[in-house]
Amino acid sequence: MFKQCLPFLDWTGAYNRNTLTNDLVAAVIVTVMLIPQSLAYALLAGLPAEVGLYASILPLVAYALFGTSRTLAVGPVAVVSLMTAAALGNLGLQTSAEYLAAAITLAFLSGVMLLLMGVFRLGLCANFLSHPVISGFITASGILIAANQLKHILGVEVHGNYLVDITHSLWQQRETTNLITLALGVTTMAFLFWVKNNLKPMLQRFGMSPHLAGIVAKTGPILAVMITILITWGFDLVLIGVKVVGEVPTGLPSLSLPVWDLDLWKQLLTSALLISIVGFVESVSVAQTLAAKRRQRITPNQELIGLGTANIAASLSGGFPVTGGFSRSVVNFEAGAETPAAGAFTAVGIALAALFITPLIFFLPQATLAATIIVAVLSLVNLGVIRRTWNYSKSDFAAMFVTIVLTLLVGVELGITAGVILSIMLHLYRTSRPHSALVGRVPGTEHFRNVDRHDVETDVGIITLRVDESLYFANARYLEDRVYDLVMLNQQARHVVLMCPAVNLIDASALESLETINRRLSDSGVRLHLSEVKGPVMDQLKRSHFLDELSGHVFLSQFDAWTKLHGTVPL
Amino acid sequence: MFKQCLPFLDWTGAYNRNTLTNDLVAAVIVTVMLIPQSLAYALLAGLPAEVGLYASILPLVAYALFGTSRTLAVGPVAVVSLMTAAALGNLGLQTSAEYLAAAITLAFLSGVMLLLMGVFRLGLCANFLSHPVISGFITASGILIAANQLKHILGVEVHGNYLVDITHSLWQQRETTNLITLALGVTTMAFLFWVKNNLKPMLQRFGMSPHLAGIVAKTGPILAVMITILITWGFDLVLIGVKVVGEVPTGLPSLSLPVWDLDLWKQLLTSALLISIVGFVESVSVAQTLAAKRRQRITPNQELIGLGTANIAASLSGGFPVTGGFSRSVVNFEAGAETPAAGAFTAVGIALAALFITPLIFFLPQATLAATIIVAVLSLVNLGVIRRTWNYSKSDFAAMFVTIVLTLLVGVELGITAGVILSIMLHLYRTSRPHSALVGRVPGTEHFRNVDRHDVETDVGIITLRVDESLYFANARYLEDRVYDLVMLNQQARHVVLMCPAVNLIDASALESLETINRRLSDSGVRLHLSEVKGPVMDQLKRSHFLDELSGHVFLSQFDAWTKLHGTVPL
Repeated sequence: MFKQCLPFLDWTGAYNRNTLTNDLVAAVIVTVMLIPQSLAYALLAGLPAEVGLYASILPLVAYALFGTSRTLAVGPVAVVSLMTAAALGNLGLQTSAEYLAAAITLAFLSGVMLLLMGVFRLGLCANFLSHPVISGFITASGILIAANQLKHILGVEVHGNYLVDITHSLWQQRETTNLITLALGVTTMAFLFWVKNNLKPMLQRFGMSPHLAGIVAKTGPILAVMITILITWGFDLVLIGVKVVGEVPTGLPSLSLPVWDLDLWKQLLTSALLISIVGFVESVSVAQTLAAKRRQRITPNQELIGLGTANIAASLSGGFPVTGGFSRSVVNFEAGAETPAAGAFTAVGIALAALFITPLIFFLPQATLAATIIVAVLSLVNLGVIRRTWNYSKSDFAAMFVTIVLTLLVGVELGITAGVILSIMLHLYRTSRPHSALVGRVPGTEHFRNVDRHDVETDVGIITLRVDESLYFANARYLEDRVYDLVMLNQQARHVVLMCPAVNLIDASALESLETINRRLSDSGVRLHLSEVKGPVMDQLKRSHFLDELSGHVFLSQFDAWTKLHGTVPL
Repeated sequence: MFKQCLPFLDWTGAYNRNTLTNDLVAAVIVTVMLIPQSLAYALLAGLPAEVGLYASILPLVAYALFGTSRTLAVGPVAVVSLMTAAALGNLGLQTSAEYLAAAITLAFLSGVMLLLMGVFRLGLCANFLSHPVISGFITASGILIAANQLKHILGVEVHGNYLVDITHSLWQQRETTNLITLALGVTTMAFLFWVKNNLKPMLQRFGMSPHLAGIVAKTGPILAVMITILITWGFDLVLIGVKVVGEVPTGLPSLSLPVWDLDLWKQLLTSALLISIVGFVESVSVAQTLAAKRRQRITPNQELIGLGTANIAASLSGGFPVTGGFSRSVVNFEAGAETPAAGAFTAVGIALAALFITPLIFFLPQATLAATIIVAVLSLVNLGVIRRTWNYSKSDFAAMFVTIVLTLLVGVELGITAGVILSIMLHLYRTSRPHSALVGRVPGTEHFRNVDRHDVETDVGIITLRVDESLYFANARYLEDRVYDLVMLNQQARHVVLMCPAVNLIDASALESLETINRRLSDSGVRLHLSEVKGPVMDQLKRSHFLDELSGHVFLSQFDAWTKLHGTVPL
């Protein structure tokens, strides 16, 4: 139990020099990759760049202590940063100090929620987010983020949170485009795309091992950062209007506390919940992918606690909502990280960056960071999955489509909420007609099969209906209708047998429907029987009065029912 | 098709003198019963008494034309009237003219919604209301209505919509109780309870047929009305503070139209939806009960159209929302009504009442109407069902309990909405762990059974998991976890076989989980196979790339899988 709550006890025992070396190497590589990402995602969330660094120190340590994945790398990620921007944008705050305080509060609320969900073992909540909704949401978010960052590439001022007003505003501002910024941004994007797609094979051709080549190829963003800093500084591009990150405070974050303002909490509650669930789902899926590769295990409820403490740590150290990120976790994994200590070492690396390199990024063009973001998020945009979902299931496609369209047009929060509600409604609708079949006896055997598909023996006085799904409120009334219809069509019937080998559950609504069916059939002189009821279902039925009131019998097997009832009804 | 939309064509052909007599007799009895009910429910909804009569004329004709039940009697009912009061109370209207106009608009919106749901065949929407939620809601509404009517029995002024403020206000006003009113109200209630419970057996003892005695016993309310009118008039009770219905305009309703005000529509939309669905569910369940007794059929989607036109008719003739009522439909049925013509004749009866008897009800005490309501709604309060649900299923009980408590404490609309949401969440939660079992071969046969319950043959290199439910987003991740756990626990396994004889559906989320399982197992050197996949599921899987990527095979039978894989893994 103790070990379950403090997962690091699992690996600290076996820690040795070899593990240390591997973790250190991975930490250095992830640090290099995380610096530009942290800065960029802080800007995406509408926060000062250094906040991104702050959110990449203590949270990593907290996760190393409480998380169960060996290789997950937490920190600011694109989708959660976008959701943060949307949540804070709704508040209509005036000063950037208020905005930062709200971001810290959001991280705190989200952390507390994750922690509580973990403690109460509510990891199952994530199940309400279907895959089509999640992937539609991430695709739409990717498009929205890319559109949002275009302003930095063009060097114009644009306001707006939705696709329509962003593009409209970009179009209006097209005259004020800063050509130098545009050139810098486009070149950086081209460079990053080239690195992403071509560097690894090229390095391999030069004899580098695929493993090492893969890691080197991930350093593209930091290279772009260094080169564009040098260019901007060397050619005094600031003087001709290229916007840079500017002065970033040096030093470690000071202790911060969430705002204790119930009104603010109320306003942020829904956003915090959505951020928590989306962040958790994303993070767990990355962690599971990596764990499976080494046949390791993660515990979703403990992951909630890990991410919860990470977010609380973020709020205590001036950061904003964080979660496990896909690309950096993969780099961490491939660079050879063996234990969460690699995450703690990364935290040290970022702390050193916050202490020493912030003066160096004064001349970092915002266009470079925007290019980094755009190249990263475009890999989130997966149009193929839309087509595949369309081919596979129209109902899943509908949920995905609504999520994408609403996310783009009316914002991330409404988009994902509508998607979740729609997918639940569609599921209930889909299961509201339980599969069922009239069955008859395969002559000479004890088997009973669908009368439409097999040549079977039936008895006009007996209607035998096999029900192939659990019975619950959404399909209970359908069952009633089906039975009444069958009895209507066969006025000679005196027995209805419900064959229940596939019924795993009968909820109170379905029980009431069965009671009603029983009563109404009795009124018209027909007896209701059950057959092949599963043990647990039978136990539950015994806790009601249904079996006492049942006009017929419960038969252990359908063959029993047949033997007892066949031929008893005069034709 | 034509006949389906105009169900009255079904019975008008065979209409004869005998049917006419039966329908006329039933209509007279229902009219007598409906007059006090209409007046009382209009007052409950906060409207002038005559509006209740108006809502019992044209709507009955509309339902007779478009409804499918032969014996359903529509008109104002208790729960819908309470919901009307709650919806209109929220608006904060100043004048009673505005209030009436809003009630007419509410009936119109509800009618249009019902009509549209019928046209688009959305009768299934009613399935989202589980039985425990509905019965909890009706019980709570009954209590709320009874509490609300106590003020008329006590003759005090009370405001409030929730149980707490009503009782608090009653307590504060206790000093102003009008003792004559109280005596009148309590006596009337006692009389009505006595009639309800004792009159029928007594009449039978005097030799009356049970059938006739039952019908006479239903005339209690009209007797109470007549007697108390005489007492109030004879003793001039108005002078000593007994409140009466007062002047009621004589004549038929004039044509009315809903208010064309988008803001008002927006405010009433949710209420109209809730009223429509609750009214529909109630009405259909009554109609089905009666239809089953005579082996007749009702069509839920056509019922929506019938109730929709009835509500639109109500809004055009100065009425308020109506639906099929339980007690009056039973009376109609038992009095021998054979066709919906009985409803049309009842409408004529009520029209005559509106034309001629309104002067007679000037002296009708409000306490009498309140007593009628209280006696009627207390039969809705079913505390037994609460205990039965508790015994049967804690999860259904939770949904019911929340519905009751919230309806009483924060109002009907929040109460039922919370109940619906909770019951859906609990259902998803309950099905989020699909039943599954590790299976092995019953030696010497082709059968495979649960390894925990049977003595079966297994192979350490093969994990065979039988999945007993459809796979969809709420349980897809659980399946993933289950498979990874099994593989973790059995490091020698090289094959995982999912046996799917009970899987009726694999949605896009579950498909993605299967793809992920396949990929992750491949990464760790384990192959995934399927067996006994149902035809329709297989057809759907073929529309994806899953089968191409599957590392193993799809076996027609589990025995096939066993034969091919058994013994292939070196120990």
